[in-house]
Amino acid sequence: MKQSQLFSQTRKNISAEEVSINAQLLLKAGFVEKIMAGVYAYLPLGYKVVQNIIGIVREEMEREDAQEILMPALQPKEYWEKTGRWDGLDVLFKVKSQSDKEYGLGPTHEEVVTPLAQAHLRSYRDMNKAVFQIQTKFRDEPRAKSGLLRGREFIMKDLYSFHTNEQELDMYYDRMRAAYARVYKRLGVDAKEVFASGGTFSKFSHEYQVFTDAGEDLIFYCADCGFAVNKEIAEQAEGDVCAQCNKGKISVHKAIEVGNIFKLMQKYSAAFDYTFTDSDGKEKDVIMGCYGIGVTRLLGTIVEVHHDEKGIIWPNEVAPFRIHLIQLGDDETVKSKAEEVYELLKEKGVSVLYDDRGLSVGVALGDADMIGLPVRVVVSKRTLEQNGFEVKLRNEKESRMVSEEELLGVIL
Amino acid sequence: MKQSQLFSQTRKNISAEEVSINAQLLLKAGFVEKIMAGVYAYLPLGYKVVQNIIGIVREEMEREDAQEILMPALQPKEYWEKTGRWDGLDVLFKVKSQSDKEYGLGPTHEEVVTPLAQAHLRSYRDMNKAVFQIQTKFRDEPRAKSGLLRGREFIMKDLYSFHTNEQELDMYYDRMRAAYARVYKRLGVDAKEVFASGGTFSKFSHEYQVFTDAGEDLIFYCADCGFAVNKEIAEQAEGDVCAQCNKGKISVHKAIEVGNIFKLMQKYSAAFDYTFTDSDGKEKDVIMGCYGIGVTRLLGTIVEVHHDEKGIIWPNEVAPFRIHLIQLGDDETVKSKAEEVYELLKEKGVSVLYDDRGLSVGVALGDADMIGLPVRVVVSKRTLEQNGFEVKLRNEKESRMVSEEELLGVIL
Repeated sequence: MKQSQLFSQTRKNISAEEVSINAQLLLKAGFVEKIMAGVYAYLPLGYKVVQNIIGIVREEMEREDAQEILMPALQPKEYWEKTGRWDGLDVLFKVKSQSDKEYGLGPTHEEVVTPLAQAHLRSYRDMNKAVFQIQTKFRDEPRAKSGLLRGREFIMKDLYSFHTNEQELDMYYDRMRAAYARVYKRLGVDAKEVFASGGTFSKFSHEYQVFTDAGEDLIFYCADCGFAVNKEIAEQAEGDVCAQCNKGKISVHKAIEVGNIFKLMQKYSAAFDYTFTDSDGKEKDVIMGCYGIGVTRLLGTIVEVHHDEKGIIWPNEVAPFRIHLIQLGDDETVKSKAEEVYELLKEKGVSVLYDDRGLSVGVALGDADMIGLPVRVVVSKRTLEQNGFEVKLRNEKESRMVSEEELLGVIL
Repeated sequence: MKQSQLFSQTRKNISAEEVSINAQLLLKAGFVEKIMAGVYAYLPLGYKVVQNIIGIVREEMEREDAQEILMPALQPKEYWEKTGRWDGLDVLFKVKSQSDKEYGLGPTHEEVVTPLAQAHLRSYRDMNKAVFQIQTKFRDEPRAKSGLLRGREFIMKDLYSFHTNEQELDMYYDRMRAAYARVYKRLGVDAKEVFASGGTFSKFSHEYQVFTDAGEDLIFYCADCGFAVNKEIAEQAEGDVCAQCNKGKISVHKAIEVGNIFKLMQKYSAAFDYTFTDSDGKEKDVIMGCYGIGVTRLLGTIVEVHHDEKGIIWPNEVAPFRIHLIQLGDDETVKSKAEEVYELLKEKGVSVLYDDRGLSVGVALGDADMIGLPVRVVVSKRTLEQNGFEVKLRNEKESRMVSEEELLGVIL
């Protein structure tokens, strides 16, 4: 699209109360707008990144035969009372209607998905199925200071699986581990699989943690064997010999949790008396697993790990556009050449943001660095004199001149 | 996909409290699940229809250069106080945090989009732009008895446009009218454009109304000239000569409002002191328009107008799958022929639901009629003896035999 038509503007100065790097960069580049602490609006560029993340997550979940559904944010109080979380979960927002009826505002969906599955999956033949949603969650966070990393309203992918026994759950759990590895790889983040607490119902859960100083979690990690464990359940300390491989040394890292997967076992099925009829005719507790990915938290995480002093550096698969075509100045020949390239790229189906504003080199390239698209193509009087374009990858220091004939080959 | 793997099941009996036809049929066919009055979960089949509706709406909005964003449901109380709607809008849900801070739970987004635009569109050069979102709304409806037609939580498309003057607004408003006509046509609903109240700030608004007895609105309509007006502002009565064409006779119709478009003028920009700098250097009030489409209400509306005594009849563009391939009985030759057709259709990129359960004719075809996909292809011992398949369109009475060679040509 043409940048002159874009709804958002970049800006140099933002509110001093915004302390997180991810929110600072996303605000400056016009990807998000802060509505209040922990609550953001996603502007066209930011929402494109969110949709790219969602597209990747959806594709990898469907590859593991999970079926997409959508559950509501408004949830019955009775369901939350059944699991003891109406009064037990302090981040649960509560809503009261005009007629004094109370609802929970979903921070998670075990309380909805369990009775939902109960209505449809009743026999052992129906089991070993999974549903997921990509949906907005609400949490009454006492502190929300980390930009997109910890919000009061945020988008999550949550998936729930239903099984006849633990072995079946284990097999699906391992499929999800593989799917999660694929998701993070495509998103361009190095997420370590980390042992974490399994709560009261299973020995361990797995978290997916991205090492960065912006994180709130502490992870003990052995670079030798790759073993990683959340400090909350670790009996090791910085500098210890790794208890797993007896070789490497444990280092400690701040990290952002971008996903976790959990064997719920029969915790929720028991709370809802959710049983299935097994092949032997007996009623047995359904065995459940749950699997979360923080979609908007990933937007923030990607920015935390992919930026420089000038702005964001988007990984290819999530960038809002692939190419930033920039017309420097409003000289007519420059303008018409830039238009020509824009039309050509659109025709080839390349996603391109065309800065048609004709600004000076400092402002235009400064904006481009802030926005951070993977490939920058500059058209100016100088490049036309050299019969070509200046092409620069956002994650490289040097630009290079490319002739008109070479252009498509170089940037596609 | 294979129906044996589908999360949802059809059912004959549903709760007697569900009085609306749309909810009855969607519940029976396994498209939705009722969580509480006015609050539904969308199961895999239902969510596919919702996504098809969203895809059409998105495409037509982007065709008119609107840019997609996502605004939050949690909204600052201060914004709602500025417009006088914190206490003035009785359907506004209010949420209180642990720290006693109050939020509105968005029933609409004028209070968020106006300050959002104010941060980005400041000069006359920035004006004449539009943003939209497809997002979940909340309304504290005292009665929610019409299934998907009037919910406490529902999906809407809302679009907002920003202009320097009324003429510019009028032009964009007319582009939206054309876009709305395209949307409803593609969705397979006959939505009449109806004059309705313009509130305190403009003479008229336009509503899009689908005539059906399930509707809550009353519309006066002249079949001769197509003039239609909501009873709330009509000075005509049933049987009157149409005041517009002086020829036709006015008939009165119950109808469902599936969209409305509104000239907000400066109502919200004035409340937020939102001005732009015009080309003459003067600060002037921004002129706004807003344009809504009820996405999940359309899901219900489509079912109200497209069904028979056996179940739903999905229009082509919104159907969750195009083809219902049905294997009758579990005879091996029938099964392997059905599998073969299934693989062939998948290979051709045709969206197909394959009933691989091998059920008897009564149960399988009963389910197919309830689910309502456009084309049914039956494989049975009888059809194989005749070297072919039985093909039936959901909206036709008669089926016909089609040979293997003809099959693709007939159903694609």
